[in-house]
Amino acid sequence: MMTTASQIGPGMVPAAHGKAVHVARGQSIRIISLHGTQVVDTWAFNADDPSEFMSMDHTRSVNSRITVAVGDSCMSNRRRPMLHVTEDTSPGIHDTLLCPCNRQLYEQLGCTGYHRNCEDNMHEGLADAGLAVPFTPAALNIFMNVPVHADRTLSRLVPETKPGDFIRLRAEMDVFVVMSSCPQDITTINGDKTPREVHYVVEE
Amino acid sequence: MMTTASQIGPGMVPAAHGKAVHVARGQSIRIISLHGTQVVDTWAFNADDPSEFMSMDHTRSVNSRITVAVGDSCMSNRRRPMLHVTEDTSPGIHDTLLCPCNRQLYEQLGCTGYHRNCEDNMHEGLADAGLAVPFTPAALNIFMNVPVHADRTLSRLVPETKPGDFIRLRAEMDVFVVMSSCPQDITTINGDKTPREVHYVVEE
Repeated sequence: MMTTASQIGPGMVPAAHGKAVHVARGQSIRIISLHGTQVVDTWAFNADDPSEFMSMDHTRSVNSRITVAVGDSCMSNRRRPMLHVTEDTSPGIHDTLLCPCNRQLYEQLGCTGYHRNCEDNMHEGLADAGLAVPFTPAALNIFMNVPVHADRTLSRLVPETKPGDFIRLRAEMDVFVVMSSCPQDITTINGDKTPREVHYVVEE
Repeated sequence: MMTTASQIGPGMVPAAHGKAVHVARGQSIRIISLHGTQVVDTWAFNADDPSEFMSMDHTRSVNSRITVAVGDSCMSNRRRPMLHVTEDTSPGIHDTLLCPCNRQLYEQLGCTGYHRNCEDNMHEGLADAGLAVPFTPAALNIFMNVPVHADRTLSRLVPETKPGDFIRLRAEMDVFVVMSSCPQDITTINGDKTPREVHYVVEE
C-alpha cells in the first residue's frame, strides 16, 4: 500500500476521472458539488483489507431504505459501518440502485472508441493508491436522481443539487474512499452532458 | 472445472443449502416454490469465466426496473444477457435490493454458533462445481417480498408465492446457476421460519 498517510485538507477529482483518498477512522470527507450537476460514483474499501468494501445491498438491508440519509451508515459486505452520513446540504437525492457506467455501457450507447467510465475510474484510482480489487462493487451514486415509481420502474432525472451542496461522511474505519466524476456525456444524468471536477475536503 | 456437462432434468436444493447447476445456452431452468414460502437467493456465473457474473445493478439499469418480469433479461457485469425471464406463474414478486444473508448478519441477530447462510451456500455450491470467486455478488432473491415505499424506505413481507409457483429462466450463455434455499429462520422472510427444499428442472 503506497498511500496510507493522512490526507487532511482539500482536493479535487478531475472531470471524468477517479481518485482514491485515504480517510482515517474518525476523520470525515466532505464531497462537494461545485457546479450542482455532477454525479459522484463513490466506493469505500477497508484500507487494511480491500476485500472488505462498501456494499449497497448490505447498506439497504441495514437502513431499510434505498437511499442514504443523515444518520445512516454505509455498510461493508461484512456488515460493519464504513461511512456514516453526518451532514447533507443537498436535497438528499442519492442513488444506490444503478451500476457504475462501464466500457460496455458506452459501446451499447454507440461509442466506437474508448470512453472514460466510472468502472475504470475506480480501478485507476485504486491503482494510484497501490490497491487492486478483482471486481467492481456497486457504487453509492452521490447526487444522482433516480426515482422509483409505484410500479417498480425507475427513471433517470437531472440532479437537483445546487452549486456548493455537499454531503459529509465520517469514516468508521480506516478507508480509501474512491470517487469518480461520472464521465456520462451522452445522457443527461449529469445535467448538461458536461462532466465537471469534484471537490472534496478531508477533515478531522 | 468439474461439472460442465448438461444437467437436464429435475433436481433439488436441500433446505438451507446451496447448489450450482450447469445450464447450457438455450436451455432453461425452472425454479419451483414447492411449499410456497421459500425464498431462493440466485446467482449466475459465466461457465467459462466466472469473473462475469449476474449483476443486480446492471440488471436494474438495463430494465429500468427494481425487480425482474417476464421479458426482462438478467444482465452480467459486462452488460450481456445471462438469464431471460420467459415465464413466471408466481405473483411476480422478486427482490433485487437486499443482500444475501451472511455469517455477520446472523451474529447481529444474536446467533452465537454458526448459522447457515446464503453467502456461504453460494460459495459451497460453486466449490462443488469446481469454481471459486473472491467475492459475493448481490443475488436475485426469487419470491422475496420487499416492497419499496414512496418515502424510499422498504419493508420485508412474507412471500405471496403459492405452492407450485415457478419462474422459468432461459440461459443466454453457458452458465452455472447457483441457488440457495435461504436459511433465514429468525425473521419471517421465508414465511413460517422454516427453510424448505427448492425444486428445479433444467429443460431444453
